[in-house]
Amino acid sequence: MEFTAAQIASFINGKIIGDENASINGVSPIENAEKGQLSFVSQEKFADYIFSSDASVIIVSEKFVKEGNYKSTLILVEDAYLSFQVLMNLYQQMREEKKSGIEQPSTISDSAILGENVYVGAHTYISEKVKIGKSTQIYPQVYIGKNVKIGENCTIYSGARVYDFCVIGDNCIIHSNTVIGSDGFGFQPTNDGYQKIPQLGNVVLENNVEIGSNCSIDRGTIGSTIIGEGTKIDNLIQIAHNVKIGKNNVIAAQAGIAGSTVIGDWNMIGGQTGIVGHIKIGNQVRIQAQSGVNANVNDGETLYGSPAISAGDYRRNYVHFRNLTEIVKRISELEKKSKEGTND
Amino acid sequence: MEFTAAQIASFINGKIIGDENASINGVSPIENAEKGQLSFVSQEKFADYIFSSDASVIIVSEKFVKEGNYKSTLILVEDAYLSFQVLMNLYQQMREEKKSGIEQPSTISDSAILGENVYVGAHTYISEKVKIGKSTQIYPQVYIGKNVKIGENCTIYSGARVYDFCVIGDNCIIHSNTVIGSDGFGFQPTNDGYQKIPQLGNVVLENNVEIGSNCSIDRGTIGSTIIGEGTKIDNLIQIAHNVKIGKNNVIAAQAGIAGSTVIGDWNMIGGQTGIVGHIKIGNQVRIQAQSGVNANVNDGETLYGSPAISAGDYRRNYVHFRNLTEIVKRISELEKKSKEGTND
Amino acid sequence: MEFTAAQIASFINGKIIGDENASINGVSPIENAEKGQLSFVSQEKFADYIFSSDASVIIVSEKFVKEGNYKSTLILVEDAYLSFQVLMNLYQQMREEKKSGIEQPSTISDSAILGENVYVGAHTYISEKVKIGKSTQIYPQVYIGKNVKIGENCTIYSGARVYDFCVIGDNCIIHSNTVIGSDGFGFQPTNDGYQKIPQLGNVVLENNVEIGSNCSIDRGTIGSTIIGEGTKIDNLIQIAHNVKIGKNNVIAAQAGIAGSTVIGDWNMIGGQTGIVGHIKIGNQVRIQAQSGVNANVNDGETLYGSPAISAGDYRRNYVHFRNLTEIVKRISELEKKSKEGTND
Repeated sequence: MEFTAAQIASFINGKIIGDENASINGVSPIENAEKGQLSFVSQEKFADYIFSSDASVIIVSEKFVKEGNYKSTLILVEDAYLSFQVLMNLYQQMREEKKSGIEQPSTISDSAILGENVYVGAHTYISEKVKIGKSTQIYPQVYIGKNVKIGENCTIYSGARVYDFCVIGDNCIIHSNTVIGSDGFGFQPTNDGYQKIPQLGNVVLENNVEIGSNCSIDRGTIGSTIIGEGTKIDNLIQIAHNVKIGKNNVIAAQAGIAGSTVIGDWNMIGGQTGIVGHIKIGNQVRIQAQSGVNANVNDGETLYGSPAISAGDYRRNYVHFRNLTEIVKRISELEKKSKEGTND
Repeated sequence: MEFTAAQIASFINGKIIGDENASINGVSPIENAEKGQLSFVSQEKFADYIFSSDASVIIVSEKFVKEGNYKSTLILVEDAYLSFQVLMNLYQQMREEKKSGIEQPSTISDSAILGENVYVGAHTYISEKVKIGKSTQIYPQVYIGKNVKIGENCTIYSGARVYDFCVIGDNCIIHSNTVIGSDGFGFQPTNDGYQKIPQLGNVVLENNVEIGSNCSIDRGTIGSTIIGEGTKIDNLIQIAHNVKIGKNNVIAAQAGIAGSTVIGDWNMIGGQTGIVGHIKIGNQVRIQAQSGVNANVNDGETLYGSPAISAGDYRRNYVHFRNLTEIVKRISELEKKSKEGTND
Repeated sequence: MEFTAAQIASFINGKIIGDENASINGVSPIENAEKGQLSFVSQEKFADYIFSSDASVIIVSEKFVKEGNYKSTLILVEDAYLSFQVLMNLYQQMREEKKSGIEQPSTISDSAILGENVYVGAHTYISEKVKIGKSTQIYPQVYIGKNVKIGENCTIYSGARVYDFCVIGDNCIIHSNTVIGSDGFGFQPTNDGYQKIPQLGNVVLENNVEIGSNCSIDRGTIGSTIIGEGTKIDNLIQIAHNVKIGKNNVIAAQAGIAGSTVIGDWNMIGGQTGIVGHIKIGNQVRIQAQSGVNANVNDGETLYGSPAISAGDYRRNYVHFRNLTEIVKRISELEKKSKEGTND
C-alpha cells in the first residue's frame, strides 16, 4: 500500500511543507526512518531529525518545527503523536482486513451456532453447542471446547485453546497459544499420593478484554474465574482458579496470581509479580515488577519487594541493604570504642 | 443434566430436610449460589448461609446445622466437604464422557500402534512407531513425535506437543500447549558464537503425573529428564534437561528447575521459585514462592528468599530489612553519642 | 541403529582395548549406563567407572585410563568429551534425517514461495506471500502469517506461530509453541478504559538464532523487535516490543525483557531475570538468575539482586541480611551500654 503526503495530510487535517506527492509505503521510528517511510516528531528531543531524517514524510507537532532545510516533506499538526495514532489505526484497519467464512479443512460441530461474518480458519476445531457472535475472527488451528460462548467482534489467534463451558465477551482479543480454562491446580493429599479435585467451573472474560500469548487462565473449581471488562493481560501470565479480576487492570508479562484472589479496578501489576491466593487487592494499586504480594492491599497503594511493602519504604531500605557491609563496619567500630571505653 | 435432592442424597447416603424433588443443574460456592444450583457448607463460618442462600439444594455437615427456616432443601451428612467431592467426581465422569475412535482429518502413521478405545481428535499428528495404551484420550491438534510411548488412560489436551522418543506412563494428564521433550539449553562457546550440543535423550513421565498448560519439559542431553510417579506440575513451569524429580511432588505455577538437579519425594515447591542446576533436594521440603534455591537442601527444610535460607530466618530478617532506615538512624545516634563522649 | 566399537573408533580416530565387535544401540551418562550403550569418561572423578560400568563401549580420555580389568570395550582418545560431541552430532544427523515435501492436509497459499527441499508438515498453515528458503523444515501444525520471510535450513517445530510480516534468518531453530510477533503490550488510558495502540512493526530473527519452547516475542509497535545473530534463547521467555538484542547472547528460561531495551553482544542473562524497558545493556555482562535490572549496565559487569547491583556487593550484603537479627541485637546492646554510660 502506498500513500502520498497529500492523502495523509487529509486524514489528519495537517499542513504540508514540501512535496505533496511524496509517497510512503511503511512507517518507522524517527531514529532509523528510511526513504519511503512515514515517521513523526512529537518531542523536543527529536526535533532536529526534521533536518536529517531520510523519512519521505514526517508528521511534526507545530511547536517543534524550526526554520531550515528539510530533506523530507513535513506535515504540521497540533499533536503529532495523536495524529500518528489516528493514522496507525486507519492503517491497521486497511492492512488487516477482516476475513469471513469457513476455511477447509476445519472441524465445526453441527450443533455449533456461528453468527454473521464469522471467520473460521483452517485446522480449527469447534466443539458441540458452541456459540460464536457476529464478525468474530477465529484464526487457524484454534481449539474451542464444548458449550463455549464467544461474543461479537472477537479475535482469537492461531493456537489459542478454550476449554469446555468458558464464556468470552464482545471485542475480546486472545493471542496465540494462550489457554483459557485448563484445570485449576487442586489436589488432596492421601497416603497414596495426591488425588485430583475435579475442576468443574469455567472462565469468564467480560467485554473488551485482551490477553497476550502463552497465558494460562485456569477454570474455577466450582464457579468462575473472572477477568473483568477492559482488563489487559500481557504474555506468559498465570491466573489460577477462582481468581476474580475487576475492570481496566493492566497486568504485565510473567505475573502470576494464585487461587481465589480478588482484584479491583484500574490496578497496574508489574511484570514477574507474584500474588498469593485468597487475598483482596483494592483499586488503583500499583505493584512494581518482581514483587511478591502476600496480604490484602488497600486502594491507591504502591508496593514493591518480596514480600511486598510500600514501594517508598522498599527503595529506602534497599539503599541501606546496598550499604549493609558498611553499616556492619560502623557497628563493629562502635563496639570497639564501647569496649575501649569500658576498658578505660 | 438435572438431579433431584433425592438422587443426590442417595449417592452420598444423606438425610433430606425439605423438598426431595428440588432439582439442580449446576454447582456453586455457597457465597454466590443461585436457584437451581447445588452447594455445600462444611465450615462454621459459612453456617448461616443455610438460612439465606438461594441454592436449591445444600449439603451440610451435621454439626453445623442450626434450627430455623431454610429456603433450600438441605442434605445432612457427616462431612459435607468429602460428600461434595464424591459428587463432583461423579458429576465430572458424567459430564466428560470418554470418547473413542479416530476423528478425521488426522494424521496417524501406519507404524503407530493404538490400544483399544483410544480417542484421537481431528488435526492431531501421530508419528512413526508411536505406541498408545488403551482408553487414552488424545485431543485435537496434538503432536506426538516418533517412537513416543504413551500408557493407558491418559488425557492429552489440545495443542500439547511430545517430541520424539519420550515416554509417558499410565493415567497421566497433560494440559494444552505444554511441550514435552524440546531440546535442552546446551551450547558450547566458540570464537564464532555458540555451537549447539545435540540433545539426544528424552523425557520420561511416570504413572499418575499431571502437568498443567504451557509448561516446557526439556529432553535430557543424553539420558532422561524424569518426572516421578504422582508428581503434579502446575502451569508455565520450566523443567530443564536431565532434571530428575521423585514421587508425589507438587510444583506451583511459573517455577523453574535448572539442568541436572535431583529432587526427592513429597516436596512442595512454591510458585515462581527458581532452583539452580546440579543440586540435590531431599524429601518433604517446602520452598516458599519466589525463592531462589542455590544449594543442596536436606529433608524437611522450609526455605524462603533469594538466595533461599531457612524460612523462619528469612521472615525474621525481613522484618529488620523493613526497619533498616530506623536501624541506621539508631546507629547514627550511637555514633553521635560516641563522638560526644569522646569529645568530652 | 547399531554400531560396533570398530565403527565408532574409526569416526573419532581412537584406539580400541577389548572387543572391536562390541555393539551399541544407544548412549548414556556413565553413572547409569547399561549393556548395549555407549558412554564416555572425560573427568578424573569418573575414571573408576571404566572398571564397573555396564556400558558396552566407553570412550576414555587417555590420561584417565588406569591398568586393570575392564568389563567394557574401551576406546582411547585424547579428549573423550570432544570425541563424544563429534559422535553425538553424527548420531543426531543420522537419527533426524531431514524430511522434504508437503504433507497433506496442509494449507499453503498460492502466493507463498517455497525453496527446494522444504518440508511442510500436515495441518500447517502458510499464509499469503510467505517466502521460505531451501531445506527449511516446518513441522506439523505450525502457523505462518502473511508476508513472513524465513531463511534456509531453519527448523520450526510443531505449534510455533509466526505472525504477519516477521522475518527469520538462515539456520534458525524455533521450538514448539513459541509465538513470534504477537502484539506488543501498548494501551493508552482513557476515562472509559484502555485503548489499544496498533502494533504495526514486526520481529526480525537474524541468522543462527535458536529459541526454546513457549516463548513470546512481541512485534514492534512501529519498527522491529530484533534478536541478533547467534543469540540463543531458552524456554518461556518474554521479549517485549521493540527490544533489540545483539549477537551471541544466551538468555536462560523464564527471563523477561521489557519494551525498547537494547542489549549488546555476548551477554549471559540468568533464568527468571527481569529487565525493565528503555535501558541499555552493554557487552559481556552477566546477570545472575532472578535479578531485576532497572538501569543501564556497562560492559563486563556482573549483576545480582532485585534491583540488581554488583553481584559481589549483593552476595556480601546478603550475608549481613542473613544475620540482621544478630546485627540488631548488637545495636540494642550498644544502646543499652550507651544508656548505662550516660546514666553513670
